[in-house]
Amino acid sequence: MARQERPPGGPDQRGMNRQQVVEVIRNAGQIARIDIAQKTGVSPATVTAITSDLIGAGLIEEVASDEARTSGGRGRPRVALRVRGAAHLVAGVKVSFGTLSLVLIDFEGTTIVEHDAELSGPRLAPDVLSRDILRGLDAITAKIGRVTADISGLGVGLAGTINAPEGFVHWSPSLTERNVQLRDMLEALLPMPVFLDNDANLVAKAEQLFGEARGVSDFIVVTIEQGVGMGIVIDGQIYRGTRGCGAEFGHIKVHLDGALCRCGQRGCLEAYVSDYALLREADVSLPVAAGPSRSERLEALFSAAHAGDHTAETILDRASRMFAMGLANIVNIFDPKLIILSGERMSRDFLYSDDVISAMRDEVVQVDAPPPEVKIHKWGDSMWAKGAAAYAMEGVTELAVRRLAIDA
Amino acid sequence: MARQERPPGGPDQRGMNRQQVVEVIRNAGQIARIDIAQKTGVSPATVTAITSDLIGAGLIEEVASDEARTSGGRGRPRVALRVRGAAHLVAGVKVSFGTLSLVLIDFEGTTIVEHDAELSGPRLAPDVLSRDILRGLDAITAKIGRVTADISGLGVGLAGTINAPEGFVHWSPSLTERNVQLRDMLEALLPMPVFLDNDANLVAKAEQLFGEARGVSDFIVVTIEQGVGMGIVIDGQIYRGTRGCGAEFGHIKVHLDGALCRCGQRGCLEAYVSDYALLREADVSLPVAAGPSRSERLEALFSAAHAGDHTAETILDRASRMFAMGLANIVNIFDPKLIILSGERMSRDFLYSDDVISAMRDEVVQVDAPPPEVKIHKWGDSMWAKGAAAYAMEGVTELAVRRLAIDA
Amino acid sequence: MARQERPPGGPDQRGMNRQQVVEVIRNAGQIARIDIAQKTGVSPATVTAITSDLIGAGLIEEVASDEARTSGGRGRPRVALRVRGAAHLVAGVKVSFGTLSLVLIDFEGTTIVEHDAELSGPRLAPDVLSRDILRGLDAITAKIGRVTADISGLGVGLAGTINAPEGFVHWSPSLTERNVQLRDMLEALLPMPVFLDNDANLVAKAEQLFGEARGVSDFIVVTIEQGVGMGIVIDGQIYRGTRGCGAEFGHIKVHLDGALCRCGQRGCLEAYVSDYALLREADVSLPVAAGPSRSERLEALFSAAHAGDHTAETILDRASRMFAMGLANIVNIFDPKLIILSGERMSRDFLYSDDVISAMRDEVVQVDAPPPEVKIHKWGDSMWAKGAAAYAMEGVTELAVRRLAIDA
Amino acid sequence: MARQERPPGGPDQRGMNRQQVVEVIRNAGQIARIDIAQKTGVSPATVTAITSDLIGAGLIEEVASDEARTSGGRGRPRVALRVRGAAHLVAGVKVSFGTLSLVLIDFEGTTIVEHDAELSGPRLAPDVLSRDILRGLDAITAKIGRVTADISGLGVGLAGTINAPEGFVHWSPSLTERNVQLRDMLEALLPMPVFLDNDANLVAKAEQLFGEARGVSDFIVVTIEQGVGMGIVIDGQIYRGTRGCGAEFGHIKVHLDGALCRCGQRGCLEAYVSDYALLREADVSLPVAAGPSRSERLEALFSAAHAGDHTAETILDRASRMFAMGLANIVNIFDPKLIILSGERMSRDFLYSDDVISAMRDEVVQVDAPPPEVKIHKWGDSMWAKGAAAYAMEGVTELAVRRLAIDA
Repeated sequence: MARQERPPGGPDQRGMNRQQVVEVIRNAGQIARIDIAQKTGVSPATVTAITSDLIGAGLIEEVASDEARTSGGRGRPRVALRVRGAAHLVAGVKVSFGTLSLVLIDFEGTTIVEHDAELSGPRLAPDVLSRDILRGLDAITAKIGRVTADISGLGVGLAGTINAPEGFVHWSPSLTERNVQLRDMLEALLPMPVFLDNDANLVAKAEQLFGEARGVSDFIVVTIEQGVGMGIVIDGQIYRGTRGCGAEFGHIKVHLDGALCRCGQRGCLEAYVSDYALLREADVSLPVAAGPSRSERLEALFSAAHAGDHTAETILDRASRMFAMGLANIVNIFDPKLIILSGERMSRDFLYSDDVISAMRDEVVQVDAPPPEVKIHKWGDSMWAKGAAAYAMEGVTELAVRRLAIDA
Repeated sequence: MARQERPPGGPDQRGMNRQQVVEVIRNAGQIARIDIAQKTGVSPATVTAITSDLIGAGLIEEVASDEARTSGGRGRPRVALRVRGAAHLVAGVKVSFGTLSLVLIDFEGTTIVEHDAELSGPRLAPDVLSRDILRGLDAITAKIGRVTADISGLGVGLAGTINAPEGFVHWSPSLTERNVQLRDMLEALLPMPVFLDNDANLVAKAEQLFGEARGVSDFIVVTIEQGVGMGIVIDGQIYRGTRGCGAEFGHIKVHLDGALCRCGQRGCLEAYVSDYALLREADVSLPVAAGPSRSERLEALFSAAHAGDHTAETILDRASRMFAMGLANIVNIFDPKLIILSGERMSRDFLYSDDVISAMRDEVVQVDAPPPEVKIHKWGDSMWAKGAAAYAMEGVTELAVRRLAIDA
Repeated sequence: MARQERPPGGPDQRGMNRQQVVEVIRNAGQIARIDIAQKTGVSPATVTAITSDLIGAGLIEEVASDEARTSGGRGRPRVALRVRGAAHLVAGVKVSFGTLSLVLIDFEGTTIVEHDAELSGPRLAPDVLSRDILRGLDAITAKIGRVTADISGLGVGLAGTINAPEGFVHWSPSLTERNVQLRDMLEALLPMPVFLDNDANLVAKAEQLFGEARGVSDFIVVTIEQGVGMGIVIDGQIYRGTRGCGAEFGHIKVHLDGALCRCGQRGCLEAYVSDYALLREADVSLPVAAGPSRSERLEALFSAAHAGDHTAETILDRASRMFAMGLANIVNIFDPKLIILSGERMSRDFLYSDDVISAMRDEVVQVDAPPPEVKIHKWGDSMWAKGAAAYAMEGVTELAVRRLAIDA
Repeated sequence: MARQERPPGGPDQRGMNRQQVVEVIRNAGQIARIDIAQKTGVSPATVTAITSDLIGAGLIEEVASDEARTSGGRGRPRVALRVRGAAHLVAGVKVSFGTLSLVLIDFEGTTIVEHDAELSGPRLAPDVLSRDILRGLDAITAKIGRVTADISGLGVGLAGTINAPEGFVHWSPSLTERNVQLRDMLEALLPMPVFLDNDANLVAKAEQLFGEARGVSDFIVVTIEQGVGMGIVIDGQIYRGTRGCGAEFGHIKVHLDGALCRCGQRGCLEAYVSDYALLREADVSLPVAAGPSRSERLEALFSAAHAGDHTAETILDRASRMFAMGLANIVNIFDPKLIILSGERMSRDFLYSDDVISAMRDEVVQVDAPPPEVKIHKWGDSMWAKGAAAYAMEGVTELAVRRLAIDA
């Protein structure tokens, strides 16, 4: 995709209205024009003009209203609008430790196919990662008889510190280099626009669109996999900070001169609760933990704790207490309506336990009002990829609407 | 003031435009219509209509443009608009430990008079505090030959956990009771609408309008007086959290099972850096600190540290390190453009020192991009009151514009 | 007493044997010569010679054996020996926070009279303290119709860092000056030899002679009153360290950069468990604790904890955990047979609880052998004074035996 | 060796005198009878009788006095006594991580030969370790044309918790089993009496006999190799505690709920300063540290710190500070005359640095008297073995003297 297609300024008022209308239709599934006007605050006349343009561009289509059909109503059947799923094919990719998770969705947001691929290694040079992603896209499109060039937009999520608006990776555990203009590198190789973000932000996006946060304007997602991450949604928007360095939940300091973190600093939350933090304790004190692979050693730790081994318990217990303290800090700063603990879960029950949530509630500022709701959302790797696709969908929609404006 | 004057829903589009126009004019000092159109994105025709209404209502007035006057220009003199200072008298009050700071500003934002008053005690029943505020307003208006009933709006700032939109105090160190509907109590006693908020938020408002954050949309103010507070501004708006319990900087936990805080919990930042935290250490180990009053004992501590007393130094040094860690946590979560350390300063240099700022920079997530700017803003008690007045000014302007709509 | 009476070198063999014989008799109450020979390993002939000397000097006397009397035995009645109580009057003094506890015992070790006296203040100049002690001795001897000059030796215990063999006080909370040659000052004022030691060592001496450690050669006493202290007995002897600065249990560091101690250092155990440490936490967070006197505030804290107040509980709970950790450190270093927790007890149950002892056992090096026995010994202030008297008794006995040698 | 040769009770007076005489002669190198009498306090007549017996038994021999020879003195040449080196061959073995260090000394204490051998693995079953030791003894004796059966006594030092008087190993990192009656197992396999002790105690013994503590009655040795250990000498005797679980310097707790130790407990000093503690931090944060072997990774860490790498420095710096705190605790408890830091040194300068010693001095109880002297003694693995041999030498001498008594 040519960089110049991404318009320099913000969208104009008409473009914003068109995009809003598409998103209202997509969220609703199908909806009548009059209901669109009501939901958006745009006048019925303008809605009629906009939807006419969108139908002309093939982005939406008219259908007989469900309501009309089911009521077997007399008189003229009501007409509803829906997004044309076939209008665009959108891809989402999550880069994990050694693996890629990919998903394709249509323009309606329906999942078409999922695919997992091996990466060339756990930490890669940017060009190697780019080629791995291309190979993954070739593979997933082949599964449904399409080609990579058919994809209208690609969302990519990876761990690390990322300036999403710039498509710039300050640092990622998946890359061998710092300061990579990764979006541009991907767009130079791939035939579609690319939308890059921190993976926890994409989980927040997924929770907002498909998950536990539908209809909630202010919430926080804490992701738990090998490490911990955070996505902050304020007033419906992902909060990213000035340089893309906000929401660094794993690097909140919870102890002066505390345990050493992978980042080289002391006392980060991650240095107490992430997999490496657990393993470096287990490795010195649990004979059973000296297995060959990380996942086997972790599994041995979890099993030992479950079986009542005191040392294993103390490892998980301290992680739980530190995690609760980290969560309490987030509540003390954001006072959100909702916190979602989001992850594959596996055996990491010690971070999702009632004890953690209860300890967190004990450590927040106490007022005579209910504390934030905490939801636990267990799901697999595909959720990350789906969040990436949802993020790309926003971008694809915006570009499609703009093209409409330019063509007009 | 009758509650019904505060309209139930959000403002309509026209009201929003009018308010925006007033604020653009106030910020500019004086400004031509065409420049208003450009700054607001409102069409010139609409600007003309709006300003006509505002002039009719006495909120703004025409003046000969400075530019025209100074250029001695030929032809028709350009006309500019300015806010009519005399249109409204607005009051701000900061409730401190035993004292009230009051300020009156005109509708242009110019300070007319300041006044300090004694409170009946450091912690008061809500009705006593209300009467103390009324007495303070009577005194400050008397100073300029006006009466309390002339005030169009009152902003009140106090420490504690406050739900500003509801005017509700969950808890404040200045009140003997929890869960006080303080705004309603004040409005029942006073003849003007009242706008209540946490004092650190009002400092943020003051920094935004008159201070170091003019023109910055995303910043954080950390206030340092007897304790530490925080105001968060995101996208130009004060961020308050769901229940008014956000931005609790002093209650971020910095140590598991750490020092006991006044709030009854362990490890809060305040339990390491606030005056009481310093004093409880000084009181057991510094003979010189056993003076009669808190401020004398603090002064003795600061002097001893300055004179190189090892124990005094270690007290301030640990506070500095904990404070730096708290600041780093804020940066790791918000990644703001700007942090303002704001306070009277006095001898609390150990919290403003280069060492603190440098330690904070070492503890934030390291990327190859400049860290947030840190500004130090030293000012006295009147700044708090002025922030309260600024907050009230927003409300007064909104109400004036609405009345205009209703009258129309 | 003239300094020259304290002989420069160690005692000679004969003196040692004589002293040993006196102590065997005193411990036994009464005992036959043949049993003395067996217990001391001294030959019967030598025992006969020694006891003859001691009887001649009036230190011991012959009595009809209890055994002979009770068995109504035929034949020649067996003769036993006992210490002549009237031979010497020995005094013990414990210097506390504002008060003196005094006791007089006879040469048999029987308590004759106890007395409490006010001190001129909590911290005194050495000469003031000396005169207060003289006044106390005058008062206690008057109670039994004697005078201070009748006392053969005085034991003095006070808190602080004391070089007992030198009679030198490095530092004591009871004195306004450091580095005081207190024994010499007292002996210049008083008519008897003075034996000075750290108060916790004297409790160890009391436990060894009258308490829970009779017959135990290696044990540790931990004293709990306003602070914590320790006396170490190795191979029957009090272990004092090179400069009298050993056994500083309260100043073991349990936290790097931890809470500030009265001594000006950070992380001392005392800074977590002593009365001042509890109070400085209670004072900021428990409204009920803001009473007028230390003991009332402490009482309020203990009551609140007992009533289930969460904050009060957390104050005592952390003290308990730190104390257990300190005890575990002592066990990990000394591996003693017995630990005695010794104090007035009052409401300080949180330091004597089963939880503390169990936590301590969890934190010592784990071997498949029983951990040290822990005994709790509750007693009042007079125990300290009695320990001081016991310490003086040793000295008086040694001097009496030497005088015998010189006279011989 | 038959167990019954180790007499049940303590030694009798005559045996004690004989042993004392041998040791005085050995320490002196050579010494006249009259000087022996003076040093031991035994009468000249008794010295003459004892030395006659010892010469008859071949344990000592007469030599012309050095003094006589060098002074070219007139008259009858003075006769001195020296220990007959050939009287006994004594072996010392130190069990390390995968290797054995062996040494043979003669009865004079002169080193004859040293030898290093591989162990079958780092952790061994007791019978495998026993056979490895036998193989090592066969090898070292072969080097000088002798056989294992020629050895009169074997000292064995290994890390762990050891009851030396019982020859019992509660736990050792070198053994796969707990609770091993290792001395008896070794004596069942080997033809000589075996003397077993914790390795740090043997270093203390070596320091006392050959090293920095000659002539010092009260001192503490802190050993630094992969972990830290401690030997305590009080009144000339190694202090071992009741169950052999004393002097556990590495398991002093320095942090409540701190880092996990190999022992399964939290907050042990070892968990901050030992090699494994450094490596588990380096492994997550220093790319260079991910080398293949422990020693290479350690070397990389030390080099990086030396080169100024901030993360490497923080790893060593925290270890230094914790170590200083541990040393201060020892001083606060023992107040010794002398502390010896004893090890191979290598690159572990961060534990021997002036900063450590200075920090330790800042953290001990402050009195106006000089703090304990700290000496640093750098030496290699053979010192451990030599300490083991010295320990065996005491036992061999005692047995030789007893045999003399039995034969008499």
